[in-house]
Amino acid sequence: MPGEGQKQLSEDTQAAEYDRAPDLPNDKDAELKKRANAVVPGGMFGHVQTRTLQPGYPQFFSRSSGSRVWDVDGNEYIDFMCSWGPITLGYNHPEVEAAASAQRAQQGIGAGPTPLLVELAERLIDLIPQADWVVFGKNGCDATTTAVTVARAGTGKKKILKAKGSYHGAIPWCSPNPHGVTPEDQAHIIEIEYNDVASLRAGAALAGADLAGIILTPHRHDTRRDQEAVLPEFAQAARDICDRNGAVLIHDEVRTGFRVSLNGSWEVLGIRPDLVAYSKAIANGHSLAALTGIDALRDAAASVTITGTFWYDAPPMAASLKTIELLEAMDGPAVMAEKGQRLLNGLAEQAARYGVNASLTGPPQMPYLRFNSDDPARTADVWCAEALRRGALFHPFHNWFVSTAHTNSDIDRALEATDAAFALVSREAVLLG
Amino acid sequence: MPGEGQKQLSEDTQAAEYDRAPDLPNDKDAELKKRANAVVPGGMFGHVQTRTLQPGYPQFFSRSSGSRVWDVDGNEYIDFMCSWGPITLGYNHPEVEAAASAQRAQQGIGAGPTPLLVELAERLIDLIPQADWVVFGKNGCDATTTAVTVARAGTGKKKILKAKGSYHGAIPWCSPNPHGVTPEDQAHIIEIEYNDVASLRAGAALAGADLAGIILTPHRHDTRRDQEAVLPEFAQAARDICDRNGAVLIHDEVRTGFRVSLNGSWEVLGIRPDLVAYSKAIANGHSLAALTGIDALRDAAASVTITGTFWYDAPPMAASLKTIELLEAMDGPAVMAEKGQRLLNGLAEQAARYGVNASLTGPPQMPYLRFNSDDPARTADVWCAEALRRGALFHPFHNWFVSTAHTNSDIDRALEATDAAFALVSREAVLLG
Repeated sequence: MPGEGQKQLSEDTQAAEYDRAPDLPNDKDAELKKRANAVVPGGMFGHVQTRTLQPGYPQFFSRSSGSRVWDVDGNEYIDFMCSWGPITLGYNHPEVEAAASAQRAQQGIGAGPTPLLVELAERLIDLIPQADWVVFGKNGCDATTTAVTVARAGTGKKKILKAKGSYHGAIPWCSPNPHGVTPEDQAHIIEIEYNDVASLRAGAALAGADLAGIILTPHRHDTRRDQEAVLPEFAQAARDICDRNGAVLIHDEVRTGFRVSLNGSWEVLGIRPDLVAYSKAIANGHSLAALTGIDALRDAAASVTITGTFWYDAPPMAASLKTIELLEAMDGPAVMAEKGQRLLNGLAEQAARYGVNASLTGPPQMPYLRFNSDDPARTADVWCAEALRRGALFHPFHNWFVSTAHTNSDIDRALEATDAAFALVSREAVLLG
Repeated sequence: MPGEGQKQLSEDTQAAEYDRAPDLPNDKDAELKKRANAVVPGGMFGHVQTRTLQPGYPQFFSRSSGSRVWDVDGNEYIDFMCSWGPITLGYNHPEVEAAASAQRAQQGIGAGPTPLLVELAERLIDLIPQADWVVFGKNGCDATTTAVTVARAGTGKKKILKAKGSYHGAIPWCSPNPHGVTPEDQAHIIEIEYNDVASLRAGAALAGADLAGIILTPHRHDTRRDQEAVLPEFAQAARDICDRNGAVLIHDEVRTGFRVSLNGSWEVLGIRPDLVAYSKAIANGHSLAALTGIDALRDAAASVTITGTFWYDAPPMAASLKTIELLEAMDGPAVMAEKGQRLLNGLAEQAARYGVNASLTGPPQMPYLRFNSDDPARTADVWCAEALRRGALFHPFHNWFVSTAHTNSDIDRALEATDAAFALVSREAVLLG
């Protein structure tokens, strides 16, 4: 389709094309959205709400299997969101589901933990060189919150450095949304610039003797901006500052853990954090979080109240043990990287061919596409809606995820959809200047 | 066995009896505890840890069904903890599990919510007169935290009154444990005395124009003390203070919801809260939480970031719909009250017969036994360990829970165990003065 980018369209045609996407059957979704608007504030909460996306985007889904998801109207998509991170082995992986179901038939939460809790803790400690102990939760924010609390308990200090734009959860101490949050909730949070050593040092200086810890994602993966690998000097500075000040280096591997790396994203740098928060991909879609820590913080962790009614639920632990076994056996991160690289290569070729200025960033297991257009958000909306219409599910302002279930043929089929999407935004760029 | 209470025992016999309990086979549990001590700080986190109980208490379990649980050494117990609240219909209820499994075979988290999210929200709104809208989470603390955030967003104010000793979660804003918590985390929390109108008014006066809300459990169910029904004048004062100040009345029904009442614990008083946090019993053991709210707070809820990776997971919603259907059809709270009352009647008769001074409190669906002895904690330890040894699982300082799966014969068998436990503490009382 080269050359389509040069095609002149009337304003009418352009508007029609824009409205058209996605023009999939959506009667059931539209009806459910209407019902949801009556019973859920804003029609849906959290990251799966579609009110921030193109009109007509499906919000309600009915099935998922392998690399595919089906919306309630029966439209099938090759999915590149992987439930926003949890799915590494493909949806409804038979061995993972069998392990979880077999455990559930014996005991879910029951009257206490099962031996699986010990087995999984031992497994994580074997796998992750940084880990001397483990506690569990249900969601990423359970683990990041426990990490910050343990850091403060262990140091007797209060200040926590975090990178501006980094997401660690949405409860008061870390919420990126000011609504309902008091200034005191974040009184001891000092924001620094990711990958900026001077900013990190300035933050540490501001904290002074009260520095409890630094919480960082292993690389920068904020929404609506290019991903960035961590600069080795930034990573080293974070480690050094913690060492010099008796502070705790915390990694938020909620999005990266068991996807980019099975044993720690900074292992390649030879730099180890003191506490690491895991969740998402730890159990291929089952609700589980873990915080791993070093021996020096064991007593601090025991002194803190770490609890939730469902935090020792056994079936997700069975799912996690099987997930880790399978990911390790196949070198899951390498397989996901290979699939992701095939996607990234195809997208880069298409962008170049259509003369579309776009950035492709991130580890290939979690790619991100950003347009360098006059209105990047609109361009991403148009691109994603067109890809969706043609059967490939991406997100316009959140990084994507690739699983080991994506076949080469899935990637190639998705690239047919994105080819048309690039063609469209290339035409739009001509129209819109 | 009347008269045994008067029996004189040598100090040696007493010590031996005390050590004896529980003398059940526990090789596997002891081995798992040893392994857990190496990989989990303190050997286990949260409310299911046994380090605060008698030595020999089982910490690890392998099976649960109906009213029974089995520890890893194969010891069977009639369980009165119901996973600390979630189990109302009995463990592994076939219809609930079938609903959850059927949903999981189609989609767990998938690419977005399923129609079940809308159906469940509609169902809760039909059931609960207070509810105009619903959002979901995984644990009780997700719902209480969202409630406080929505109250602050809706009022633009900061102060929250809570009752001293009431538990609403263990994250910084509400943790009862000072370790790792900064003063600022709870800077806007004002503690008042439950059921003390003057204290409530003093708290409101202290908050002044900055009162965002009052969070209360529908009755007092703090650990290590007698439960108390809410005094109608206290409930009314809470409602009035909120109405006069444009503040939000929040109910924490995490422990009581779908157990004491299906539609609101204060409906009998004709007093309605503005926000209600539910979790535990909402899905018979599956991890789910819900916050219900009134129309006036709908926009505030939409303005707040309410999210977690697993918060729209469909199988617990399928479990919840089935659980609610079954509880409503049989009037679950009434059934649980009847079972609980049979237990309470039996315990009261035994305490009287053995001359043991004990308080039995709480709604019969969640009874609590406290000893008025010189050392109530020790007496409770001895009593619970003896009951456990004889096959009935209670807790020495947390209220218990009864499910609809407890048969009269279960209760009567448990009462045989407690008869022996009362006999033992009665003898101990003689010995210890």
